[in-house]
Amino acid sequence: MSDDSRFGLRRQVRLSGPLALDGGAALGPVDIAYETYGAMNADGSNVILICHALTGDQYVASDHPSTGKPGWWWRMVGPGKPVDPADYFIICSNVIGSCMGSSGPASVDPATGEPHAMRFPVITIADMVRAQALLLDHLGVDRLCAVIGGSMGGMQALTWPTLFPDRVENCIVIASTARHSAQNIAFHEVGRQAIMADPNWRGGDYYADGRVPSAGLSVARMAAHITYLSEAGLTEKFGRRLQARATKTFGFDADFQVESYLRHQGLSFVERFDANSYLFITRAMDYYDIAEDHGGSLARAFTATKARFCLVSFDTDWLYPTTESRIIVHALHAAGAPASFVELSSPFGHDAFLLECPELNRVVDGFLKGGRA
Amino acid sequence: MSDDSRFGLRRQVRLSGPLALDGGAALGPVDIAYETYGAMNADGSNVILICHALTGDQYVASDHPSTGKPGWWWRMVGPGKPVDPADYFIICSNVIGSCMGSSGPASVDPATGEPHAMRFPVITIADMVRAQALLLDHLGVDRLCAVIGGSMGGMQALTWPTLFPDRVENCIVIASTARHSAQNIAFHEVGRQAIMADPNWRGGDYYADGRVPSAGLSVARMAAHITYLSEAGLTEKFGRRLQARATKTFGFDADFQVESYLRHQGLSFVERFDANSYLFITRAMDYYDIAEDHGGSLARAFTATKARFCLVSFDTDWLYPTTESRIIVHALHAAGAPASFVELSSPFGHDAFLLECPELNRVVDGFLKGGRA
Repeated sequence: MSDDSRFGLRRQVRLSGPLALDGGAALGPVDIAYETYGAMNADGSNVILICHALTGDQYVASDHPSTGKPGWWWRMVGPGKPVDPADYFIICSNVIGSCMGSSGPASVDPATGEPHAMRFPVITIADMVRAQALLLDHLGVDRLCAVIGGSMGGMQALTWPTLFPDRVENCIVIASTARHSAQNIAFHEVGRQAIMADPNWRGGDYYADGRVPSAGLSVARMAAHITYLSEAGLTEKFGRRLQARATKTFGFDADFQVESYLRHQGLSFVERFDANSYLFITRAMDYYDIAEDHGGSLARAFTATKARFCLVSFDTDWLYPTTESRIIVHALHAAGAPASFVELSSPFGHDAFLLECPELNRVVDGFLKGGRA
Repeated sequence: MSDDSRFGLRRQVRLSGPLALDGGAALGPVDIAYETYGAMNADGSNVILICHALTGDQYVASDHPSTGKPGWWWRMVGPGKPVDPADYFIICSNVIGSCMGSSGPASVDPATGEPHAMRFPVITIADMVRAQALLLDHLGVDRLCAVIGGSMGGMQALTWPTLFPDRVENCIVIASTARHSAQNIAFHEVGRQAIMADPNWRGGDYYADGRVPSAGLSVARMAAHITYLSEAGLTEKFGRRLQARATKTFGFDADFQVESYLRHQGLSFVERFDANSYLFITRAMDYYDIAEDHGGSLARAFTATKARFCLVSFDTDWLYPTTESRIIVHALHAAGAPASFVELSSPFGHDAFLLECPELNRVVDGFLKGGRA
């Protein structure tokens, strides 16, 4: 299936697989929904894969079909941007486990004709990457000029050269980490418990009647959203300012602007995301620990790759703080891999990688140009 | 009503009030449950009031009647401790709005014979302090040798000299703040939404049939609990260690120790705490902003007091970080109030004030002795 969007191409492909998963199960067929921008050159040397974050999707630079909003990384990808379709063949695919057209708990299991729901196999970040590799095979892409991602997208980008050391030339990892910390797991567990506590969740089998666990998913999103913002950013944006009525109600309505903002974040999220997908993707992130998969040595994961690496962190990001990027850089240097690193200053916390940040654009642009020089 | 506990005296008193509340309502009668330790001396110069935190209670140094655990601050209060009943007449009362015997949403409204539930008036930290002052009047206590509290207890302690400048000689504020920040409000709002999303909550009217909103309250507690611990402390305590079975299940059971720990925190909390009380007390904390009540000037709040102040923060506390204590110290100095301040080092984050911390005991001991010299 395909139709024209603003300037991307909306596509979905069914690959036979089966895809052998880290958890021992096999997934097949494997549906992958993706967008492409630009065209592959003759020697296939201009392909860039963009990896999306937890609640992201393939619409990196095209309008979102249900919200109508511009692509989530239009500041980075598009004409005149660092990742320009005039120069590159750009691919962004929906991760497996998600809900925007790739195989996930909400998609129909061909064996039963019913949604997988919680019978969908638990996946890992590496499984998401292996599915992307299947898509590249399908598209006739042998090597990636670059793989780029922020947050969970950065986890996939960093995993790429560990699984396919010969297929990646440049790797850009932004606001990310090489392993999920105890605090990261803890926040995810709160979100999962909120979803599972919603009586509409019903063990995940809520697709038939449309009564979805919106309240639980909304609470999960609210808790997560706090971790995407910095304390200073929240203070600057909202402080203790009251809503328009400007006086305290001494009640439980949203008196403070920050309450109203958070409630809105929760409510708008449930309209575009599947609760079971939230469970599966957060679980994949919690299992993520590249060193663990290489005998406890992060450096060992990168000994076979020839890729160049670019790491970027933000000084106010407390979800994946700068220390996590430094750990990766040290491991890359120990493995003899060329790696540059920069910590950018931003008031916006983890979300900075999605927001207006000219320095980030300059870093990505310079690194990509350096790789072609 | 009164009975002997280990060495405290378990008491509850009904004061006629009415207590005029910040929100405009009046509360009366006002039930206050409290514990005392030691005896008042002839000139009444040895009275110390201990203020408890959000989910704390009056059992500061006596076994908790339902959990059987030692008092929540047995390390600080008791024979041979800095706050010793051999030296002081020590009072700790359950805040109004709570659920351990003081007037709150779970207590019966004498006017209707039914629990107040959400018809209980919204209260503030200052209202809690005014209720404590009523109790002191009842006990014949004119002046406090000291008022001491950590976290929300510190908010009450800091409010005391602003409302009753002549009744406080020494004020010890630990791991606290002069106002709730946007991030503080945001985390509380997540907890409240989790409770209200629980279908058992039913607008707060769940007392009759015992089907309480346990799932929502448990999620609220889990989210809050993360904010009480430091990232480093969580990593040290749990890291990414798996449960005893030691292999990943690739499922949604609690694979990681930190998940199991958080779930336990949620489940054990709902056995001892009322969900509506959680709503009312978090709301009181969100409304807390001492400067706002004094024309925007924190210093102005303290110009009339003669009290000495002692501020303590912990370097890994990100809920009420050191910067918040510094703001208070600057305001106290601007007001001409004697104030000492120390930032202690601890791996335990906000919870440090409740845990083994010999330095904290030395600071409190030294400050109290200095006040009597």
